Order: sequence, then C-alpha cells, then structure tokens
Amino acid sequence: MFKINENYLKLPGSYLFSTIGKKVAAYSEAHPDKKLIRLGIGDVTQPLAPAIIKALHKAVDEMGAAETFHGYAPDLGYEFLRSAIAKNDYQDRGCDIAADEIFVSDGAKCDCGNIQEIFGQDNRIAVCDPVYPVYVDTNVMAGRAGDWIPEKEMFSGVIYMPCTMDNDFVPEFPKETPDMIYLCYPNNPTGSTLTKAQLQEWVDYANKVGAVILFDAAYEAYISEEDVPHSIYECEGARTCAIEFRSFSKNAGFTGVRLGFTVVPKDLKCGDVSLHSLWARRHGTKYNGAPYIIQRAGEAVYTPEGKAELKEQVAYYMKNAGVIYNGLKEAGYTVAGGVNAPYIWLKTPEGMDSWKFFDYLLETSNVVGTPGSGFGPSGEGYFRLTAFGTYENTVEAMERIKKL
Amino acid sequence: MFKINENYLKLPGSYLFSTIGKKVAAYSEAHPDKKLIRLGIGDVTQPLAPAIIKALHKAVDEMGAAETFHGYAPDLGYEFLRSAIAKNDYQDRGCDIAADEIFVSDGAKCDCGNIQEIFGQDNRIAVCDPVYPVYVDTNVMAGRAGDWIPEKEMFSGVIYMPCTMDNDFVPEFPKETPDMIYLCYPNNPTGSTLTKAQLQEWVDYANKVGAVILFDAAYEAYISEEDVPHSIYECEGARTCAIEFRSFSKNAGFTGVRLGFTVVPKDLKCGDVSLHSLWARRHGTKYNGAPYIIQRAGEAVYTPEGKAELKEQVAYYMKNAGVIYNGLKEAGYTVAGGVNAPYIWLKTPEGMDSWKFFDYLLETSNVVGTPGSGFGPSGEGYFRLTAFGTYENTVEAMERIKKL
Repeated sequence: MFKINENYLKLPGSYLFSTIGKKVAAYSEAHPDKKLIRLGIGDVTQPLAPAIIKALHKAVDEMGAAETFHGYAPDLGYEFLRSAIAKNDYQDRGCDIAADEIFVSDGAKCDCGNIQEIFGQDNRIAVCDPVYPVYVDTNVMAGRAGDWIPEKEMFSGVIYMPCTMDNDFVPEFPKETPDMIYLCYPNNPTGSTLTKAQLQEWVDYANKVGAVILFDAAYEAYISEEDVPHSIYECEGARTCAIEFRSFSKNAGFTGVRLGFTVVPKDLKCGDVSLHSLWARRHGTKYNGAPYIIQRAGEAVYTPEGKAELKEQVAYYMKNAGVIYNGLKEAGYTVAGGVNAPYIWLKTPEGMDSWKFFDYLLETSNVVGTPGSGFGPSGEGYFRLTAFGTYENTVEAMERIKKL
Repeated sequence: MFKINENYLKLPGSYLFSTIGKKVAAYSEAHPDKKLIRLGIGDVTQPLAPAIIKALHKAVDEMGAAETFHGYAPDLGYEFLRSAIAKNDYQDRGCDIAADEIFVSDGAKCDCGNIQEIFGQDNRIAVCDPVYPVYVDTNVMAGRAGDWIPEKEMFSGVIYMPCTMDNDFVPEFPKETPDMIYLCYPNNPTGSTLTKAQLQEWVDYANKVGAVILFDAAYEAYISEEDVPHSIYECEGARTCAIEFRSFSKNAGFTGVRLGFTVVPKDLKCGDVSLHSLWARRHGTKYNGAPYIIQRAGEAVYTPEGKAELKEQVAYYMKNAGVIYNGLKEAGYTVAGGVNAPYIWLKTPEGMDSWKFFDYLLETSNVVGTPGSGFGPSGEGYFRLTAFGTYENTVEAMERIKKL
C-alpha cells in the first residue's frame, strides 16, 4: 500500500491566507450588507500600467502568427528579460551579477518554496520570527523542520530569531549555528529594513560560518531611504553566500500575472558543486519556463515608459502606507513599518491577541487585516495592514478605525 | 557548513532535451549553411488559434482597467476554467469528476514532477521503459530511486517495465509490487496506447495491491480510435487509485503559454488522509495560481469556435504523423505509433545505437530526432520523431530520409 508524506501532517491548520479567506467569506455571507475593506493579503488593486498592457497585446499578436509564434521558452528564461534584469536591477546598482545567473520563474513564492529542495535534508534553517509562512512550511513538508510543539507554536528543528519592537525588528545572530538563513528585507510582515551596514554583518557572518542566506527582496521597489540596500549583492562577499528572490508582483502589480526571478551567483558553492548548476537542473527538470507573453510584459517593466508608470504606481501605494501609518498613530496605536515597505505593523491594543483583534476589526469596522501570530510566535500581539488597497478604501478604513 | 541535496549528483548527465539542444546548437554553429528540420523535442509550431488569441486580448484589456483587474488567482484555479474542464473533459465523457477535484497549474511537466512530494519517501515507483524522463528524474532528486547502476543504465530502486515491439508496448504487471505506478497513454515516446480493457486491468491491479496510478494523459486529443480511453476515469474504480495529468500544450499549442491541470478525486485516500487535501496544501503553499489571462485562454479552448479550430490543428499534426509513418515504412524502417499519438517510434537500422543514429540523421539529412535510449534502457535501438513540425518541413524531412 502506498504511503503519504507524513511531514504534511505536521503542518498546523491550513495556509494562513486560506484561513483568512474562509473567515472573511463566512462573515461576508452572514452580513451581505456590510462593505468590507481588505487590507489583509498583500494583493494589489491598481490595473497593469499602459506600457505593460501594450507589451502584452503585442506578444499575444506574435503568438497568433506562425512566423512569430513561440513554443517552449528557454528553461531559464528568455535572454531579452534576463539581460534587462541584470542591467537594471544589478549592474546599474553596482552589483556584479550576470544575465546567466538569473533564473526567470512564475513568482517568488514558488522559488522561495522550491529552493530548499537543492539543500541537504539535515541542514538547519533559521528564520526571522515573525516571518512569511512559506519558508517554514516548505521546510516542514520536506521534513527539515522537526516536530510542531503546540505549546510554543514552534517547530523543534527551526531556529527562530525574534524580531520585535524590543530589538527594532533586527534579528540577532542565533546561538546555534544555522546552515540556511532566510532573510526578507524590506520585511514582510513587519515593514522593517536593514541598513547596508547591518546586512553586511549578516553576509560576513554567513561567509564565516558557512551558511547560505536566502534573501527575499520582493519589496525592494518600496525602499525610500538612502541607506537601505535594494539587493544583497550590494554587500561585499554576497556572491559566495547568498541567493536572492525577486518578484514582479509588488513593483509592477503582477500578482495575477505571475513573474519573478531568482539569482544564484556562480561563486556560491558547496565543495566543488555550484548551487547554480543544481538550481538549473531543478528548473530544467521540474519547470517549463514562464509564458512568452508574460516575459515580454516583464521586459516592459524596464522600458522608460514602464519605469515612469510604475514609479507612480509605487508612489500611489506608499501614499496609502502614509495614510495608514498616520491614521493609526492618531488613533493611538503603536506602529512600525510603512516607510520602506507597503506593510504597516501595529501593536494590538490592550494586549488583545492577534486573532481576537482580527475578529474585532472585522466585526466592528469591517476591515480585514492579518493577525501577527499567523507569521510566527513573536508576531503574537501584532497585526499587519497593507497599503495595496485603493486610496479611497484606505482612507475610509482609517476613518472607521479612528471611530472605534 | 550547509550541505546540498546529494541525490542531485546521482542524476547521470543533464536533462535529455537540454543535451539534444546543445548538440544541435553545436552542429548548427559548425554548419551555418545547413537547414535543420527539428522533429526532436515535442514542441508545437502552429500559432495559437484565433479563438484563443481573441480571449487573450480580451483578458489583457481587463487587466488594464481597475474595475476588471485580477490579482492573485484562487489557489486551485478559477471556477470558470475548472467547470469547463469538468464538463467537457470528464462529465461529457461519462467520467464522474467534479470541478473541485481539478487543480489548474502551469503545465503537466511541473505537476508530474511535483506530485511525488506528497508521497512517502520509501514508496516504490514503477515506470514504463522507455519513459518520459521527468517521472524518474524527480524521484531521483527526492531520493526515492536508489542509486544509478551505470552498466544497466538503471536506478537500483526503480521498477522498470519494459515496453518494446516484443510486447506491443504494453507493460506487464511487475514481479515486485509497486506503490506508485506512472503510466502515460497515449504514450510518450512510443506513440502506443492501451485499450479500455487493458487500462481497466491496471486500475483493478492498483486497487488490489494498494498502489496509486499517476496517469499522464497529455496526448489524449490525438486519439483517433474508438476503443482507446481519453481518461483513466473511464475505467471503473479509478477514483480510488488514480491521479490524472492533463496539458493544454499539445491539444491547443500552449507549450509557450503554460497551462495544465491535475485531477485528484476525493475518494483517493491513504487511511484517513485524502490525497486531494495534501495536493491542495502543496498548491496553496508552493504555488500561486496560473495567470488570469492564461486561464481565460484555457477557457476559450472549450468554446465552440475554440473546439472547431483546435480540431483542425490536431488534424494538421496527425497528417504529419501519417507522412512520417508512411515515409519511414517506404524507406524500409520498422515503425510504431503515429495513429493515436503525435509520436512515431522507429527501430534504428542495422542495430545502430540510438545516439549514433541521432548523429547519423543529424549529419546526413539534417533532421533532429530524439534517441530512444534517452527515455530508458529499453529505448535503446529506437528513435522518436514528432509530428509537431510544419507540414512542409515534415514532407521534406521524409524526402531526405528516403534518399539516405
């Protein structure tokens, strides 16, 4: 009789955002007259920029004619997109990353989830706490996280690095030495950042202890301050210790378009084996490339028109972030984030637990957010709101919250 | 120091089609004057049908307006597409499959590769030999295939079921009982099929021994004979033992568009645990849905216009299959396939080995095919040609081969 992967049964409950979705659907059904404002999941609301729409139409037309039709894409992405990424996201920022170190994919979530496959089973992972659930959950599925300890709400095999207001959301080097360190900056969910000097310390640490940093930079487009690095490759020595994940979801509104990429420098090795060759093998064997028309849309992100239009789009969301940040302050909340990231991280009032605050906000103001405890035990007592709503809804949500 | 997944090092050489790509590129560069005809990789050449192009443009326009913009898709696919699939591919054929048993994805290759993750590490897999390399390679990566035995060109932990002209390409039940059985019909690479009665025997066998059948039906659109099942769910009892993979790549030319789906019936269980819930968890955690515009393109496949146009497209490729089949026969080759599948499987002449024949054909007639041994040890002495070229090129390739 066949057996299942028992590791799946160690996952407590369902994926965070599925649970929220179900709770919200149930409330909606019970109260069809209420107008909900969703500032929970990090989904965007603004339409695709005109330069991207134009590129999509053009590519669709190409697919309709035999002379310009495109079948299977190159495993690792079209050269036109990989070159545009290498130049704009890396070389123009002084990062030494070549086009053939970039692997185009259908999104950073998939890559963040799949990357652990190329690592050994007994590697020890370290994550910030709170953290985007995908890092831990995918390691649980792979049997690398140990067992769930209900009373601690932690996995026995994972090194948690608490990030709270007490340490200004900057993790300390863990006591136990990790093999794989997940870092996400600008951070989801806390909206916090590391300075270049702080990130350099992590790169130095990783090189010293022989760890690999899995750096999720999905939110780099929201950085407004000078001293905050957009890529880990701005730090010296990152080529020998870091993999970077990037997404088009948040900088270009591609959540429903699906495009991202992963950078694996050729200098990153375990003995003789380059991780670049392992990831190439995984991509070639288990993936079949991002759609041609979507890769053309990605290319349009880097045109002068695309850049100008997307700068406005990011500014639109960051205006929302300001509305939320200031609105919550006015309402008496303790607030973080929202300056270099589209997330605002607030302390729940009067020691209310995160899910209780979720229900309270949903029921009293019809605003949907994300409970901090869904991101890890140190997220308990916090709550995340996102700046990805419309401006009108964001303003209204703040009016409602101020009235509570 | 971090460690890598050592299982990757057990994979011999690179992914088959990457190797072919490199060989062909090298030949092309050395002989820029030669006109190559590629009948190797199963990539299509006909442009997308007008009904699909129309749907894509419409969906792109929707993405450009705030009122009709779509962000994250539902984890498991849009209801409009899942319903169209359930009705057209299953219910209309008398198969008891519901829309919520269908998981939309970016292609059958990914799903075929990822499905093994939800199974236990010590399950024993059985594959036809020759076989699409993804089934074995992904199990090697997961450490489920044992070690590579170079002299046998086999993995020690895999049950190989030879399919050759001697048994008319119909595998026998293996001596050792497998837990997971990969079947692909119409078959890649041999182009062979099972009758409904033959497939029913496999379903009965799987239910008896407690195995799960992983049924790859990517080529069902090419079935021309009455007695050949389009889906494993045409067989009684398949709901308790089978998962089915489908692709839009070959029936609708989506190789560069990326869309597929997997069916996991809710009756398929291991003890109390439904595989449906495990796959849903995997999808929700590691995948973020197929692009909205691509799912709309998939929906167009099931419209009356889409159906009519795609019927013609399939007929176009099957005309090519006839040209290859008859051309090879005329040239004195022993040939199989090509009737219910876009693949023609030929015996190499005079006991030439598969890669030698690959080089011979490339150098003498500038035709690219796929060496049978790339699909497994029992593929040695065979060679695959595909019907996915243009009609003109296919005719020319046969003229060249006949002249050899």
